[in-house]
Order: sequence, then structure tokens, then C-alpha cells
Amino acid sequence: VRRLLRRGLPPADVAQLLESIPPRERDILWEQVDNPAKGEILQYLNDDIQTEFLNRMDASQLLVATQQLDNDDAADLLQRLPHATLENILSMMTPSRRASIEMVLSYPEDTAGGLMDTNTITIRPEVTLDVVLRYLRRHRRLPESTDNLLVVTRHNELIGVLPINRILVSAPGISVREIMDTDVVTLTALMHEDEVASIFERRDLISAPVISADNRLLGRITIDDVVDVIRENSARTMMSMAGLEEEEDTFAPVLRTSRRRAVWLGINLIAATIVSIAIGFFEDTIQQIAALAVLMPIVSSMGGIAGSQTLTVLIRGLALGHVSGANVRWLVVRELLSGSINGVLWAVIVAVMAVARFHDMTLGAIIAMAMVINLLVAALAGTLIPVILKKLSIDPALSGGVLLTTITDVVGFVAFLGLATAMY
Amino acid sequence: VRRLLRRGLPPADVAQLLESIPPRERDILWEQVDNPAKGEILQYLNDDIQTEFLNRMDASQLLVATQQLDNDDAADLLQRLPHATLENILSMMTPSRRASIEMVLSYPEDTAGGLMDTNTITIRPEVTLDVVLRYLRRHRRLPESTDNLLVVTRHNELIGVLPINRILVSAPGISVREIMDTDVVTLTALMHEDEVASIFERRDLISAPVISADNRLLGRITIDDVVDVIRENSARTMMSMAGLEEEEDTFAPVLRTSRRRAVWLGINLIAATIVSIAIGFFEDTIQQIAALAVLMPIVSSMGGIAGSQTLTVLIRGLALGHVSGANVRWLVVRELLSGSINGVLWAVIVAVMAVARFHDMTLGAIIAMAMVINLLVAALAGTLIPVILKKLSIDPALSGGVLLTTITDVVGFVAFLGLATAMY
Ligand SMILES: [Mg+2]
Ligand SMILES: [Mg+2]
Ligand SMILES: [Mg+2]
Ligand SMILES: [Mg+2]
Ligand SMILES: [Mg+2]
Ligand SMILES: [Mg+2]
Ligand SMILES: [Mg+2]
Ligand SMILES: [Mg+2]
Ligand SMILES: [Mg+2]
Ligand SMILES: [Mg+2]
Ligand SMILES: [Mg+2]
Ligand SMILES: [Mg+2]
Ligand SMILES: [Mg+2]
Repeated sequence: VRRLLRRGLPPADVAQLLESIPPRERDILWEQVDNPAKGEILQYLNDDIQTEFLNRMDASQLLVATQQLDNDDAADLLQRLPHATLENILSMMTPSRRASIEMVLSYPEDTAGGLMDTNTITIRPEVTLDVVLRYLRRHRRLPESTDNLLVVTRHNELIGVLPINRILVSAPGISVREIMDTDVVTLTALMHEDEVASIFERRDLISAPVISADNRLLGRITIDDVVDVIRENSARTMMSMAGLEEEEDTFAPVLRTSRRRAVWLGINLIAATIVSIAIGFFEDTIQQIAALAVLMPIVSSMGGIAGSQTLTVLIRGLALGHVSGANVRWLVVRELLSGSINGVLWAVIVAVMAVARFHDMTLGAIIAMAMVINLLVAALAGTLIPVILKKLSIDPALSGGVLLTTITDVVGFVAFLGLATAMY
Repeated sequence: VRRLLRRGLPPADVAQLLESIPPRERDILWEQVDNPAKGEILQYLNDDIQTEFLNRMDASQLLVATQQLDNDDAADLLQRLPHATLENILSMMTPSRRASIEMVLSYPEDTAGGLMDTNTITIRPEVTLDVVLRYLRRHRRLPESTDNLLVVTRHNELIGVLPINRILVSAPGISVREIMDTDVVTLTALMHEDEVASIFERRDLISAPVISADNRLLGRITIDDVVDVIRENSARTMMSMAGLEEEEDTFAPVLRTSRRRAVWLGINLIAATIVSIAIGFFEDTIQQIAALAVLMPIVSSMGGIAGSQTLTVLIRGLALGHVSGANVRWLVVRELLSGSINGVLWAVIVAVMAVARFHDMTLGAIIAMAMVINLLVAALAGTLIPVILKKLSIDPALSGGVLLTTITDVVGFVAFLGLATAMY
């Protein structure tokens, strides 16, 4: 492995390797990495491992490891440290580096300000392209993903951008003002990262300037960091549907795994207990007709499946910004109609199966009615739960599933057992 | 709305608007869009709506609508058309446009070849930078996201790339060969789009050249198209976990919705029937002790929840490339240990609850044992199902959940009711 590192395996690939092996091997490999290379690798690791490795390094090691990183990437790492260590490291930096990192840290991690790089190339509108070219030649390299130069006034107000490609295809005597774009997509520092990602996606941007409320240029966000936001967010939805941490280490040790999972199991036990209490009301009916206990999971599971489909469509619709107050009513109607069609279809099939098995027409009628009721409730709950949770600022992906299946289980069992109690 | 379109609402925003309204309003809005603008908007729509709108347009409308699109984007749309219409449209194009589109279409949609744009700027290694600059000035604009010029031999073999930013910071007299990068990340035409996305992500690329097996340059892939691949793939996992289509229209009409959902409900009915048959073996035991029917959903639901968590961690681990043959054994052990800890913990709590409710120590012992058994089976099934499905080239996100809950339900019920039959 050491040889691989020496031969210049890219940092992202080393991170991938570290994420793909169990903790013990991981620690051994990490020891092999030279200190200055650690910063680059750290930024690609998931939060679990990042935090663990960061806390093992002392301030001077951290200073060396983060030296090569862009301000935004260094800020990402340093914010995971305890306050005292962070202060300690900042105090050892050059004043300008320190000011830049402190500016990024002053914005919440999930906003444009927290994502931005403060390292920008700015030019003035009145200069000509050959002046710009001469100015650029003084740099040894441009900041990564520089596709635009930012045109600012004397007071650092953003007034336009000059695409680098346009410099190349234009005559050298022309002034910046004549060929700059003034119709610029700008991001405000407190804009949420999801909105930033959606703007990059829709406008096919490579970088975009971040400005303050009074239109002063603060920094720029580049597509590579936006790609990471998109990946993290999609992972978050899927993981939180199973009550898991967004950036959980695949190879988290037993105790950490058990502790995190226990919380979710506890929440689900409460839900299961509610369902069990609901069934308890019908203990006598079940004692008389044990066939009910044989069939009842069919009613509840079909309701759960139908409801989960509606729920998933709504969660995605909300995430993509398709669903809003105005069209929820349309969706409820569509889901109720679709729930009726599938409710009747599967009610008939299940009823035929039940009659064939237990030779009891009443039982067939009861299970058919319970199925239709439960699929309609599932349609309604699947549509309304995510909308309501979203309004209450609760992540529907996290708690929507438990809520939904608790409702479909309770309604399924109560409808089925209740009808049976009434009709026998 | 017409006014909004005239005022130059970006095509991606119009597409977002179209995706956010029910079919009837959507058709009215679509009629308002001018034909030449339709192509740009179409490429941002999800597959459901795209296919619908495309099939309503005739060949000459389609020709006008796709005229402004890059070759790769035009190919994306045209491939959804029936073969005869496609041929018809291709025959009306200029020979060079036709050849480019046919080349893209000759590769599967989910490979590098299917994603690439054939429009590239190539230069020769022996020329100097001022020659390159003069050559560039002959273009009115460079292809989108041009961050590198591609350096090729006389036989169109790729030998390096020249970052545009480097042209700007270098002396004009220097030759391309002296400052080009020869250590280029290249994509082969048949590489899967997921691998393309992972390379872009890890190397923070803006564009990358696509080459044939004999190292000839075929085209280039740009980050904006890769971002779309990443978004689509993450949506696919989440949707397929609920048995839904990847690019389903949020506002799909009732009949289409019902038809698609019915398939999934049917598959789940088979699973539920298997579970019901398993319970059926213990009908007599339930008849004697109806309390079993009250408690049995707790055993199965806790197993299902624990198993789903393991399953989700494994599905994500497989998707990220963390899980391989070598470390599956480690994961199985971790999950079994974690399953034992949580199994014992919750078994004790559930047993106490059961004894408090039914005043029956035997029942408490039975449910505790059943819980531990089911959580261990859930751990094993949650780890092995996705690994085995992946080996069989079946999408674990699609069928893993049904398989898993069928197993945890059957095991949960059989363990609980079987132990009860044995002990009473
Ligand atoms: Mg992170
Ligand atoms: Mg970076
Ligand atoms: Mg984040
Ligand atoms: Mg960052
Ligand atoms: Mg885009
Ligand atoms: Mg950055
Ligand atoms: Mg598509
Ligand atoms: Mg494309
Ligand atoms: Mg495009
Ligand atoms: Mg695709
Ligand atoms: Mg394509
Ligand atoms: Mg990256
Ligand atoms: Mg493109």
C-alpha cells in the first residue's frame, strides 16, 4: 500500500480504499500516509471516519495536513474539531489565511457561505483584454475550476463576469466592460446548499459567485463541491428512510452500530406496541375464529406497501420541488382513485383466496371490505403525512415510514377484526 | 406564463414548472411554448413526460426543436422516438450532424459513448500557443464547459490535454507539447455511466475525453451531463426500494399510476400469502391462546426494521463500492454481534411488557426467544440478500426489501408460534 501511495494514487482513491476496509486494517493503512498528504485524503472521507482521524491528530500535525488545502476545504475539516483546538490552529496561520477560513466558518455549513472558496480572481471593467492577459500571466496557476473572471467595482461590488473562453476568442484591444456578462447568476451567502445545487444543475454552471446582502463579492462556489452536496443529499434521504445516519461508516464498529440502531428499534417498538394494543381489543373474536389471525397480516401488509409507494412519490416530489400547496389536492384525488382501483382489484383476489381456504363467504366479504378501507387510508396517509411533516419542518424521509405503517397496521387490523366482531 | 417564457425564463425552469403541474394544465402550458424552444425544455423533463411530448410532435417539428441542441442532447431525445420517425428525422439533417448523432446513438445510453458530445476542439502538439490562440479566435464561441483543448496526432490519437487556464498564464512562444498534460484521465466508450460519474467525482473533473479501444478520440463528456447521471441514479435507488419507476412523473394520470402500482402490490401479495400460510400451520395454537395473535406483530415488525437497516447499509455500501467479497465476512460478524446485543436488549423489554399484560411467564420467555432468533436472522438476511442479488445481477434495491421482510415475517411468526406450540 505504501508503494501505491508513493506512486501517486489520487487522494480520493486512498479515501475510497480507507472507507472500504474494517477499522483495524484502516488504522494500519492510515499510519502509512505521510502527514502533508493526510489533509487531501481527509476531505474525501465520510464524517464518521473524518471525525475519528481528526481527533487523533495534534494541532501541529493538523496545521501541516491542511496547509495545501483550499480555504473552503480546510474550513470543512477544521469545523469538526473541538473549539480549543480550532482556535489553536487558527492562531498558527498567516493572518490572511486565518481571516478567510474564519469568514467561511462564520456561515452555517449547509449554506452558500459555508461552501464557498474565498480565493477569487477579480478584474475591473475599464481595463482591456491584453491588460487582463498580462495580469493573469503573473499567476502561476488559476484557482481550480476558474471558468469566469469576476468583474467588480472599486468597492468590491460584483457587476459582471468575464468567461475565460471569451477572452480567448476576442480581440486583445477590447475592454472588459464591452464583452462581460452582466446577467450573472449570483448566490447569496445564506442561501441553502440544496438551492445552490438546484441552481447549478438547472443552469449547468461550473462556478458561481457568492455575494453579501449589499452585493459585495465574498467568494465563489465550484461544481466539484456542489457534486458532493448532491451526493450527500441523495444518500441522506435513502439512509434516513431506514433511520440511519447520513454519513455512517459502512464498517462502523459493533458498539457504535448497536447504539445507533437501538434508538430506531425503540421508536419502532412504540409503534408496534400501539398496533398490538389495537389487536388486543379483539382478543375474544380471535379466540373464536383463529382464521382471522392467519389472514390479518395480508390486510396490513398490502396497506403498508400501497402507502409506502404513495409516500415515496410524495417525498421525491417534495424534494424536487414539484409538490406545493396548490397541487396537493390533485394528488390526494389521484391517489384515492388509484387506491380504489387497486383496492377493489386486490380485495376480490384476496377474498377468493380466503374463501377457497376457509370455505366461509362472510370471511371473504370482511377481508375484501377491510382491504378497500385500508388501501384508501394508505393513499390518504401516504399523501398527507409527508406534506404535513414538511410543514412542521420534520424530515418526512426519516419519520414518514414509521408513522405511515403504524397507521396502515392499526387501520388494517381494526377494520378487519372490527368488521369480524360485528358480523359474527 | 407566455409572458414569462418571452421574458426568457430559462428552459430548465420551464421544465421544472411543467413537471410541477397536473397533466391538463401541463398540456395548456406546453402549447404556449414556441417550437424552437421546445428542444431545450424537453431535455430537462423526466422520461415519462419527455416520451409523451415527443410522440405528439411530427418529424419537421422535431427537427426544428432539436436544431439548437448539442449532438449528445439531441441524441438523448431522438432515441425515445419510434425507429421510423428517427430515420426520417436523421435523413433531413446535414450529413455531418447526422453522422455525429448516429455515432452517439450507436452506444448504449448508459455508457460513456452514449453520454458524450462529439463536438471537440483538437490541436496538434507541435504548434505554439500563439498559433493556438489565433486558431481559437476563429471560433465565435467554444463548446460548453471547454476547460481543456485536446491534443491529438495526425491519426486522431489522443496524446494529451492542454488546460485553457494554462494558455492564459504561459508565454505565447511556447509549444503545446512543452506544457500539455500527458497524464490524462480518459474514458473508454463502453465504460458504464456510474463509473464515469465516480471518476468525475473523485478527480473533480469538468470534462473528460472519450476514446475508442485503439486510443482514437471520439468525443468528450461534460460535468453538467454527469450531474444529471448522479441525480438520476440516486433517485433510482430510492424509487426502486418502493417498486417505483426511476423517472416517474409525479403527476402521472390515475390509470398509469394504478397499473404500475398493481404489479408491485401483486408481488407483495405473493409474499404476504407465504407469510399467511406459515401462520396457518399454527391455527390451533392461536385458537387456544389468542394472546399470541396480539403479540406476534411485535416480533415480526422488530425483525423487519432491524433487517431493513442492515439491508440499507449494505445496499449503500455496494453502491459506493465499499463492500466486496473480502469484507462481507467482517460485515456478517458485525451485524450478528450487533443483532445479538439489540436482540437481547429488546427481547427483555418486550418480555417484561408481555408478562405485565398477560401475567404469563412462559409467554414472556417465548417472545424473548423469538425476538432474539428473529433479529439474528434479520442480520444475516440483511447482509447476505443484497450481496447475493448483486452477484445474480438483480437490483438489490428493488427486490431486497420484499425478500427480507418475507423472511423476517415467516421466521418471526414461525419462531414465536412454534415455540408456543412446543411449550404449552
Ligand atoms: Mg462531509
Ligand atoms: Mg477541491
Ligand atoms: Mg452537508
Ligand atoms: Mg467545502
Ligand atoms: Mg443540468
Ligand atoms: Mg472547493
Ligand atoms: Mg432522462
Ligand atoms: Mg446528454
Ligand atoms: Mg447541455
Ligand atoms: Mg440514465
Ligand atoms: Mg445520451
Ligand atoms: Mg469531488
Ligand atoms: Mg452536453
